[in-house]
Amino acid sequence: MSGDQEGNQQRGDQRMSGQGEAADRFADDPAFAVHEGGKLEVRPTRRITSIADLALTYTPGVARVSSAIAAEPELARRFTWAPRVVAVVSDGTAVLGLGDIGPAAALPVMEGKACLFSEFAGLSAVPIVLATTDVDEIVATVTALAPSFGGINLEDISAPRCFEIEARLRERLGIPVMHDDQHGTAIVVLAALRNAARVVGRPLGDLRVVVGGAGAAGVACTKILLEAGIGDIAVADSRGVVHTGREDLTPTKQWIAANTNRAGHAGSLIDAMAGADVYLGLSGGSVPGSAVATMAEGCIVFSLANPIPEVDPEVAAKYAAVVATGRSDLPNQINNVLAFPGVFRGAIDAGATAITEEMKLAAATAIADVVGDEARSDYVVPSPLDRRVAAAVAEAVAACAREQGVTV
Amino acid sequence: MSGDQEGNQQRGDQRMSGQGEAADRFADDPAFAVHEGGKLEVRPTRRITSIADLALTYTPGVARVSSAIAAEPELARRFTWAPRVVAVVSDGTAVLGLGDIGPAAALPVMEGKACLFSEFAGLSAVPIVLATTDVDEIVATVTALAPSFGGINLEDISAPRCFEIEARLRERLGIPVMHDDQHGTAIVVLAALRNAARVVGRPLGDLRVVVGGAGAAGVACTKILLEAGIGDIAVADSRGVVHTGREDLTPTKQWIAANTNRAGHAGSLIDAMAGADVYLGLSGGSVPGSAVATMAEGCIVFSLANPIPEVDPEVAAKYAAVVATGRSDLPNQINNVLAFPGVFRGAIDAGATAITEEMKLAAATAIADVVGDEARSDYVVPSPLDRRVAAAVAEAVAACAREQGVTV
Repeated sequence: MSGDQEGNQQRGDQRMSGQGEAADRFADDPAFAVHEGGKLEVRPTRRITSIADLALTYTPGVARVSSAIAAEPELARRFTWAPRVVAVVSDGTAVLGLGDIGPAAALPVMEGKACLFSEFAGLSAVPIVLATTDVDEIVATVTALAPSFGGINLEDISAPRCFEIEARLRERLGIPVMHDDQHGTAIVVLAALRNAARVVGRPLGDLRVVVGGAGAAGVACTKILLEAGIGDIAVADSRGVVHTGREDLTPTKQWIAANTNRAGHAGSLIDAMAGADVYLGLSGGSVPGSAVATMAEGCIVFSLANPIPEVDPEVAAKYAAVVATGRSDLPNQINNVLAFPGVFRGAIDAGATAITEEMKLAAATAIADVVGDEARSDYVVPSPLDRRVAAAVAEAVAACAREQGVTV
Repeated sequence: MSGDQEGNQQRGDQRMSGQGEAADRFADDPAFAVHEGGKLEVRPTRRITSIADLALTYTPGVARVSSAIAAEPELARRFTWAPRVVAVVSDGTAVLGLGDIGPAAALPVMEGKACLFSEFAGLSAVPIVLATTDVDEIVATVTALAPSFGGINLEDISAPRCFEIEARLRERLGIPVMHDDQHGTAIVVLAALRNAARVVGRPLGDLRVVVGGAGAAGVACTKILLEAGIGDIAVADSRGVVHTGREDLTPTKQWIAANTNRAGHAGSLIDAMAGADVYLGLSGGSVPGSAVATMAEGCIVFSLANPIPEVDPEVAAKYAAVVATGRSDLPNQINNVLAFPGVFRGAIDAGATAITEEMKLAAATAIADVVGDEARSDYVVPSPLDRRVAAAVAEAVAACAREQGVTV
């Protein structure tokens, strides 16, 4: 072996091993080729090619750096990588549309997330998939490993556990913690809705919104839309509109019931859609075109189930002025990658100790403003590849954190 | 921002921030410059520059890979990075010679270790420093995050907790677990002693050894020397030779008492050194030259405290045929980097479920054999930069694992 070259060689060799017969099974799908051997690597920022390098990177030089941090803990922000590394933490219980597939099967998704952190925000990110689904154990584990990281991106953890896990970690840890399935989605939905309102010529706060789904994303979207000034929101779960008369509500849904449904709906999602300006689908399942037909003139349909939207996009287009989905092959893709890289980058740049509601609202506005005056019915959010977005989001989030004073 | 270039630019900018006045304080010591911004980064193995890339690395393509792993868990070995990533885990309680300095101050050491894994074995490694020193919590935390990694390198955890933590994790986890302060040191000490015995023309098993120190390294060195066939070993802690008549012994030291001290020493370390062939210093503190003068003709002194060896190396050289230290500025540096990269690389290459005693012995022999016939008094171990070592160790360890059948 002779250093990196040979190291890479060995990695290459290893990736080749075990193929042969097996390769045939996966050869037709390029996704498997992209995942061969995993999608990440950890590399030193400087090579070690001399005894002098070794004596600076490792002992005895490193002892002087460790001693300095022991004496002045804030020096860890400058002389370790931790403040610039995000842990992407999942227990594998709610992975994409696949459900509870466990930590090993969730790992490719977390690796992908880490790739996006690097690609769009220049941040290092490490996937941490957990062999437990117990709330107390997850909180204890993430708390224990927190000194290793500058931020915690919770991912693909099922509701309602995700609410408690995030809330407890936010309370315990002095670094940014965000459950992306909630807040990443909410930020991008709000950004898209800002521009959709502009396209249909309506003030955001006047829109009457129906949210289909009261899971992680449904709850977070409802909250951010309330914070953005939308007063008339009805939220439906699989049993119909969430209202204060229901006795089957979790604490989170009790909060929803108390803070939404000004109009007093008590029936089904489809009942509530009649006359609504916005349908926000976050539930999966199927909503018939006939329900969209009952919505208000110039309505907005965000149907985000992936890969099969709740409302068929072609049918939705017959009735709606703006249609958005989660699909990359259609216009107006609501993709979390527009939010999380810049949100964490901004929080980390500012030395933020938390990601506040105001920082999320600032992120949504920044995403919307990248589109700005160019907004039209098939362009309410930027492309997920638009390199301007993460920088704009990071700047807005960092400015907000500094203004709020939630920084180290 | 425009991808990696801008990402790196931002990283660069960030590293610059906070310097100015502060830079002056650390400008005289190049170790701080090497640590500015940390020493590691996580990078994707492939760029994401198109919607097609995004659809393969992330949704929807990644869902097919995750589904395949959910159906056939062993596919995680091929399609995730986990099998090739080592977690370098520390609670910061016994860091170098600095003692209990906590997780943040320990991090530069763990980052350095991760650099060495990459540099010498082409393995990715992630530092995990823990906000707990409780044995149960450490075991629970590492168990919870184990599906994210292919091996666990425990580091700088104080004795006697390190023994229980390692033993419990080895029992629980089906991946290689090794406390490097114990076994990395032991492997390199055995390698060096094999060649030192050759230099002085003695069979290894005939040597009479005195070990100064019964902490993590002292215990592990004693065990590996016993396994290598050395029958006459006396181990001393700060209260003198460990023997069965003492009533102050921890369970680990009770084991030492029961399995060493054939000669029945009951006095001090210095008493036991009289007539001994080998002194192995792993305790820190100071041992006078007069004690070395009482050792046998052609004796061997390994004095590994760093940066100040227990026996002054110049004094030791007056009496000893072979002198080794932990220092990089003297010949015969006993440096763990000769062992751990190759040990983990070999274990991972073979798909080993554990690092067995036999694999450690094979590693020691492989290190010794890199020196082989060239052994002389000032060359009993290879240079820590010798690129042949990790490859030789990996090959020997992998072969041993396969032979023992401790593989997935």
